[in-house]
Amino acid sequence: MNCDILITNGLVKTSEKPNPGHSSFVAIRDGLIILIGTMAELPAQIKAMKTIDAWGCLVMPGLINTHNHSAMTLFRGLADDLPLMIWLQEHIFPAEAKFVSREMVYWCSKLAAAEMIGSGTTTVADGYFFEEEAARAFKESGLRAVAAQGIIDFPAPGVPDPADNIKHAARFIDRWQDDKLVTPGVFCHSAYTCSGQTIKKGKELARRAGCRFFIHVAETRDEAAQSLKQHQVSPVRYLDQLGVLDEGTVCVHCVWLDDDDIEIIRDSGASVASCPKSNMKLAAGIAPVDKLLKADIPVGLGTDGCASNNNLDMFGEISTAAKLHKVNRLDPTLLPAGRVLAMATSGGAAVLGLQETVGELAVGKLADIIIVDLQKPHLTPMYNVDSMLAYAASGSDVKTSIINGRLVMDNYRLQTIDLAEVIARVNSLAHQVRKAT
Amino acid sequence: MNCDILITNGLVKTSEKPNPGHSSFVAIRDGLIILIGTMAELPAQIKAMKTIDAWGCLVMPGLINTHNHSAMTLFRGLADDLPLMIWLQEHIFPAEAKFVSREMVYWCSKLAAAEMIGSGTTTVADGYFFEEEAARAFKESGLRAVAAQGIIDFPAPGVPDPADNIKHAARFIDRWQDDKLVTPGVFCHSAYTCSGQTIKKGKELARRAGCRFFIHVAETRDEAAQSLKQHQVSPVRYLDQLGVLDEGTVCVHCVWLDDDDIEIIRDSGASVASCPKSNMKLAAGIAPVDKLLKADIPVGLGTDGCASNNNLDMFGEISTAAKLHKVNRLDPTLLPAGRVLAMATSGGAAVLGLQETVGELAVGKLADIIIVDLQKPHLTPMYNVDSMLAYAASGSDVKTSIINGRLVMDNYRLQTIDLAEVIARVNSLAHQVRKAT
Repeated sequence: MNCDILITNGLVKTSEKPNPGHSSFVAIRDGLIILIGTMAELPAQIKAMKTIDAWGCLVMPGLINTHNHSAMTLFRGLADDLPLMIWLQEHIFPAEAKFVSREMVYWCSKLAAAEMIGSGTTTVADGYFFEEEAARAFKESGLRAVAAQGIIDFPAPGVPDPADNIKHAARFIDRWQDDKLVTPGVFCHSAYTCSGQTIKKGKELARRAGCRFFIHVAETRDEAAQSLKQHQVSPVRYLDQLGVLDEGTVCVHCVWLDDDDIEIIRDSGASVASCPKSNMKLAAGIAPVDKLLKADIPVGLGTDGCASNNNLDMFGEISTAAKLHKVNRLDPTLLPAGRVLAMATSGGAAVLGLQETVGELAVGKLADIIIVDLQKPHLTPMYNVDSMLAYAASGSDVKTSIINGRLVMDNYRLQTIDLAEVIARVNSLAHQVRKAT
Repeated sequence: MNCDILITNGLVKTSEKPNPGHSSFVAIRDGLIILIGTMAELPAQIKAMKTIDAWGCLVMPGLINTHNHSAMTLFRGLADDLPLMIWLQEHIFPAEAKFVSREMVYWCSKLAAAEMIGSGTTTVADGYFFEEEAARAFKESGLRAVAAQGIIDFPAPGVPDPADNIKHAARFIDRWQDDKLVTPGVFCHSAYTCSGQTIKKGKELARRAGCRFFIHVAETRDEAAQSLKQHQVSPVRYLDQLGVLDEGTVCVHCVWLDDDDIEIIRDSGASVASCPKSNMKLAAGIAPVDKLLKADIPVGLGTDGCASNNNLDMFGEISTAAKLHKVNRLDPTLLPAGRVLAMATSGGAAVLGLQETVGELAVGKLADIIIVDLQKPHLTPMYNVDSMLAYAASGSDVKTSIINGRLVMDNYRLQTIDLAEVIARVNSLAHQVRKAT
């Protein structure tokens, strides 16, 4: 029996054994997990191109980031602690208008890919302008992505005439439709930056192509109030009236929902990407994630872009989500560790429509696997794997990462990205930003 | 000119230059910072026993953790996501009764010291049983500490007869009174576990010895309600009536305060240790830190013990505090990055009465210095040092640490702690816990 990569001697976290007790192996061939078992069950005749000794480590599914604007790494820390409208209109929008280019999206998405791979993310859902450059950066980095072309009813980088935005998105989907690593999608920015007509056309395009449709929904109290004023209904009900909520739609943020909105989302089959750290930093509010989960709505976690977070460590989102909803309801039993970890793995896969192939370790699934080094003071002792991952671990504990059967980080070293070059390129772009602001 | 340690080529964050622009040096001799300047100002004749090249790094004051029960690393992840009273009474208290010993406090405090040094903490305020063993662990590790003997009106580890608790604490203070690294203190657990008489005696002891007096105050809604029922006043007002609030008292948690309580604390001169991650995980509530700061009350940040957090990374507390209070008031301008960083450095020093000697980098201050490696994807680019530290960095970015002029971590390697031995010892203790639970 031959395999490409054989991981040995690790604690392997599968759906059957979320708290693994025995030293085990995982065998990978042609991008797939072909065998999992205890070391005692390891076939004597197995031969591997590469063997990774995971002694003292946890082998687990890679994390799934269901919301990012990766190229915004360029604006990390450019403007913080400001009122939302000043932050957006006087800092972020002008910086985007001036500095978003093909080159910027490529290099800054690559920096994001380096950060994400380095902290345990194996799949990202991304949405931005010049998305073809982001897709290229992810593909080269070996990072699985649902890359969605941004659509907005203003002149935007790469699409100077908004009348072309749907056509542009359609071309992007055509180009990436058959890629094994990058799945294309459509991202209409929001109901306050896109007309009802644009939103309907964007969703129609996504339906035709069988791909995911993303939209920011009910992020801030002002947005919800504006929707009531303009459309006489909540943001969620407005989207429902447009007919764009279904199993293929991902509603991002969903902070300001009432019980009717939750029912609408549930009945439509749509899913939610929740970004707790971004919502906290921008003071947007606290999403009713406990209620969404109770309604059996698929909920994933996302980092959001680096202008509003400011890092892409999914372990931070897990830890924050697990604690924020507890304190919000004054109930320490809400969102227990295992539930939140599921949101960042199998739950995230379901949000992105990838549940058949990724999100858990099982024979026949794609090999998206991370190896977490347990030999650290803050991970000692370990009574419960889920608790350790949700409340004590961080992205910097991820030692090795395999995506689609490819070794993308080996013993803390990125294998697919020239990090020094990427940092130098982004610093050079940041120098231009600094000079102009 | 001779010095013990010379740090060169770093960006040095001083109170005058919180956003350092020039490559600079710091010279250390006999535990003190003796010179700071740009590389152009480096004296040609300077000689150093050890030179640390901090190119591409930030040199900043070490972080100050104002609340921990260090030995509770043994109970990290033992019980989570439970209702508070079940967690305390069925898990934590029985585990403490059974497993807290001299040996346990020594080794588990040493594990905590390893974790704290490794993540940038240079001073910890600790309170537990067998505090002399914690103090010994900190001293050997080279970690600065305010170590406070725990006092409680029940039979406790090391103090089987509660009638001895003040006497025991007095002996502890005598033993450590003149130590340069470990400052002794008194920790009365709370007004619901200590009688008014015990609290008054504990404070009297602290006053006589000139040391800090700590007490958990108004952590949960139930505690506040119980105080009203039992004493007809809020927890803060009760302590004020006992006469134990003054400049030497640190009120830990302070979640359930009304405006009168805040006024009482301000007028008394007492300070506050806030533990946002612990308060979130236990669903205790959100402390009115914005109001405390507005009232000019000294506020520090603390991790709390590992049973309720579950790690000791102060960067996590900084990041959480900076975001939690924003979302709590729906105001993104609250607790800006620089303000929160000050809480974890100079502010923490003030809480612990150490503001004359530590908490900032300046000539004449004690050399408690950390070096943060900036050459990482998640710290690129850097427009603003405070924002980067508060919103993007984590404890794992700390590369080197100097405490009291002694190099305790050099290029990610602990210099004073045999980590493999400590992990093995704690794992062996944890094995006993696992067998019994």
